[in-house]
Amino acid sequence: MMNSPLLLTNFMQHAARYYPTKEIVSVYATGTFRYTYDDWYKRTSQLAGALRSLGIKKGDRVASFSLNNHRHMELYFGVPCMGAVLHTLNIRLSVENLVYIINHAEDRILFIDEDVYFLIEPFKDQLKTIEKYVIMSQSGVMPQTSLSPVVLYDDLIKDFPETYDFPIDRDENEPCLICYTSATTGDPKGVVYSHRGLVLHSFATGVALGVQETDCSLHIVPMFHANAWGAPFACTMRGLKQVLPGRQILDMATLCRIIAEEKITFSCGVPTIWIMLHSYLESGGAHDFSSIRYLFSGGSAMPRHLIESYEKQYGVMMAQGYGATETSPVVTLSVPKSSMETMSIDEKIDIRATAGMPIPGLDVRLVNTETGKDVLMDGKEMGEILVRGPWIASEYYKDPKQTAITFPDGWFHTGDIGTMSKEGYISLVDRTKDLIKSAGEWISSIDLENAIMGFSKVLEAAVISLPDDKWQERPLACVVPQPDVVKTITKEEIQDYLKDKVAKWWIPDEIVFMQELPKTSVGKFNKKKLRETVIPDILKKRGKA
Amino acid sequence: MMNSPLLLTNFMQHAARYYPTKEIVSVYATGTFRYTYDDWYKRTSQLAGALRSLGIKKGDRVASFSLNNHRHMELYFGVPCMGAVLHTLNIRLSVENLVYIINHAEDRILFIDEDVYFLIEPFKDQLKTIEKYVIMSQSGVMPQTSLSPVVLYDDLIKDFPETYDFPIDRDENEPCLICYTSATTGDPKGVVYSHRGLVLHSFATGVALGVQETDCSLHIVPMFHANAWGAPFACTMRGLKQVLPGRQILDMATLCRIIAEEKITFSCGVPTIWIMLHSYLESGGAHDFSSIRYLFSGGSAMPRHLIESYEKQYGVMMAQGYGATETSPVVTLSVPKSSMETMSIDEKIDIRATAGMPIPGLDVRLVNTETGKDVLMDGKEMGEILVRGPWIASEYYKDPKQTAITFPDGWFHTGDIGTMSKEGYISLVDRTKDLIKSAGEWISSIDLENAIMGFSKVLEAAVISLPDDKWQERPLACVVPQPDVVKTITKEEIQDYLKDKVAKWWIPDEIVFMQELPKTSVGKFNKKKLRETVIPDILKKRGKA
Repeated sequence: MMNSPLLLTNFMQHAARYYPTKEIVSVYATGTFRYTYDDWYKRTSQLAGALRSLGIKKGDRVASFSLNNHRHMELYFGVPCMGAVLHTLNIRLSVENLVYIINHAEDRILFIDEDVYFLIEPFKDQLKTIEKYVIMSQSGVMPQTSLSPVVLYDDLIKDFPETYDFPIDRDENEPCLICYTSATTGDPKGVVYSHRGLVLHSFATGVALGVQETDCSLHIVPMFHANAWGAPFACTMRGLKQVLPGRQILDMATLCRIIAEEKITFSCGVPTIWIMLHSYLESGGAHDFSSIRYLFSGGSAMPRHLIESYEKQYGVMMAQGYGATETSPVVTLSVPKSSMETMSIDEKIDIRATAGMPIPGLDVRLVNTETGKDVLMDGKEMGEILVRGPWIASEYYKDPKQTAITFPDGWFHTGDIGTMSKEGYISLVDRTKDLIKSAGEWISSIDLENAIMGFSKVLEAAVISLPDDKWQERPLACVVPQPDVVKTITKEEIQDYLKDKVAKWWIPDEIVFMQELPKTSVGKFNKKKLRETVIPDILKKRGKA
Repeated sequence: MMNSPLLLTNFMQHAARYYPTKEIVSVYATGTFRYTYDDWYKRTSQLAGALRSLGIKKGDRVASFSLNNHRHMELYFGVPCMGAVLHTLNIRLSVENLVYIINHAEDRILFIDEDVYFLIEPFKDQLKTIEKYVIMSQSGVMPQTSLSPVVLYDDLIKDFPETYDFPIDRDENEPCLICYTSATTGDPKGVVYSHRGLVLHSFATGVALGVQETDCSLHIVPMFHANAWGAPFACTMRGLKQVLPGRQILDMATLCRIIAEEKITFSCGVPTIWIMLHSYLESGGAHDFSSIRYLFSGGSAMPRHLIESYEKQYGVMMAQGYGATETSPVVTLSVPKSSMETMSIDEKIDIRATAGMPIPGLDVRLVNTETGKDVLMDGKEMGEILVRGPWIASEYYKDPKQTAITFPDGWFHTGDIGTMSKEGYISLVDRTKDLIKSAGEWISSIDLENAIMGFSKVLEAAVISLPDDKWQERPLACVVPQPDVVKTITKEEIQDYLKDKVAKWWIPDEIVFMQELPKTSVGKFNKKKLRETVIPDILKKRGKA
């Protein structure tokens, strides 16, 4: 067979050549911008020309600090296909982390959304390698900014030709994107993606999701999250209409308007968004979901009762994916099998509430961390999830120490503990470090959280481990009540509710009510912060600190 | 990213692990055999053990002489995944060709369908490298045969363990299958497929066809045709139920019974089968096509009026694929785009009657053979179709001379002339060598054939070039009439019918009526044979020979 490299370039050019009139739609606060793959390819070519004129060479890092919009779609392909590496910066990271990763990646150019450039200004002097700032806006008046040198995106590209000789005589293993994990301990760790890895990830997710050219995707996951779960690549490969909601992802009325007007057929998002959307729906918010065939949730566990409500109240099927920045990111999907067609709706929702079954092309094992042996596929025996495959990272960028810990033996050790059913569906039990050991028995913080969140008076709940003299550890629940019961909810109510839901010894003795839970930059419960802030108080009250 | 090789092994093990109860169904004259992916994987493991015990090592060739059945499915994965190379022999090849390719490939073991072993006996002494014959049947009584040494398939494997340590620390470019093109001139040419190529072909066709796990495929294309168009691999990857009709593909009543009983959702086949099936339907044959969502035709052009009849009379959508043994084989698919939804049925059928649009992952060009430049995407300018990509052959096996002709510059030169519409759909005009040049103008033999086959009194028609003193070349039509008009049809009727269908100078002066047309071993019109047999007669009659 020909030694043709797997490059994202093929997807870009395939879309431009065979779907030139298909739309990419970008929604801004000021209005909706729409253009075609043909337009997009021309501007992406201009961008590549501009980068070359700035001296950007093969392997150089170019950073983006942006939400989901059409210019970010140009960067997603223009940077990798001209030979450089796109570093997507999470706009919610701390200043400390941003400075660290920009310097660590040695980014040369920084593209910034037009309404957030002021976030960069305070620490610009700490950025050692940035040579130019580009504000992602149309030509016009440069805002007052201390960033320098600085240029507007459309000014940067406007004088370059609408064709570019994208190199194809390349090694498919060349890096194309880089993304840092939002570490809760230590420095962020960089994952470098290759063209080969992302092409294969696109094929495998395209097959597993059954993505059709007739589909229309709303990219809710921010494009700085693990390449937005690969959707921009898979959708371009297949010539889909793509809708980029920008900052509107937090405005549920607008999101519902987009879904209805653009006839969205599927969308990927984190539970935070689906929970917000659900609240909006429950309050009677206007919507028309008739075009949707699937919603996908990932990043953290989606409460089962919400998956159920989406299906039963709003006629929308929701499935979950599981993965990590290190896995490009899709490892599993929780779509029921055809053999499950005769199941009841509730049984199917049970399946959708799992973390899902591996997609083709990967090897996934659940391993007893003490014996090193694979656990049974019985839905009971717990093991750490190990993943291997062509779109799984083999190392952290310039970080041999963390690499040795996480990739010790050719497998990615996820740090997640789960079970696998005989049908191959994984249920997450906990993070290895979040499991609670009470009197020698394991308590899953996630299972306990889900049980508590099943109580109608509870909005969110996070469970952490509290040191205990008698039982070694006991679960501590941090609970955000529903708005209407903030003043009336009691600890006893929750304990009472749990009585027939979990084992007696799982019921937390301590329950702390909070206004909100601290979250990481990707929307997961920040248990590290919870431990730091909540536990000392409790121990102090107990007179032990 | 991890350096994980792309191997068919992953698809096999994925199916066995996550779809253990899904069925593989094999239909024999004596009844239907059904087993599960779990059973299949166990027997495939036994087969691998047996091959190893016979001394089959990495890269060794193992041949199959078989139609589509469950043992062939075991060979399809067992041979490549244990490290060897499966050579699928076309059972319709001439003895001369069979002897040539078996010796050329240096096949060590020959697996033979139980009802065709007698076809091998006459030339067994010419096979220089075969060490063992295996008759693909269950344990029992060995038939009387001169093949030696010989063993029954189930006897061969029965004592080996149901697990096998399939090697995965391999180079993805290792060969896994080999197939020879059915050459109409010269010796057959071998194409060696790699694991990498077939894994990528499976992903790309899976995405392009929108193959779902809920689908059920009837493999009509014989498994000795270019890996049965990749369907056994793509279907296994996605865990589909697969149905293997064996010799029943020529019995339309049985085929329809299988479609109805097994709830087939899609099937791939050559026009010959779809024409036979259509005749069966037209004669009122029993059928239930309610489960079918698509039929795919390939290998040669499907007459438009039959695609139309399938859709309008029988409610079945049919699309075409284009490719070759050298292309694994899928290059294009003629499924209409979503932007064509508002088209009329007839316009959509026009699209389905083309050779289709390239699938993602390949580069396809149409090149003017005189200027070397790409032709316009205007549906008019003709060019030779050139293909490049990771599942396109780069050479013929041990044949540098033919390799230099067909792969001169990093592209596969298909020898097919076509046009490409602005939407990217290719229409085949002709083979470079079958085009007819009349008075300096090109006549497409294929277009003329299709025009003639549109006449209700015509069953099949092939057009070849007839030397002509005045016009250099003139088209000669070889026509098989419908059975009921064999004795009454006239040349003038056809010429009259063509008057408003093609340019006047395209209308053949000579029309020869025949009982049947010679076909190649893959069911295409054998124009070489037609030229050899028909033209001398005509020239003789004209008194010029």
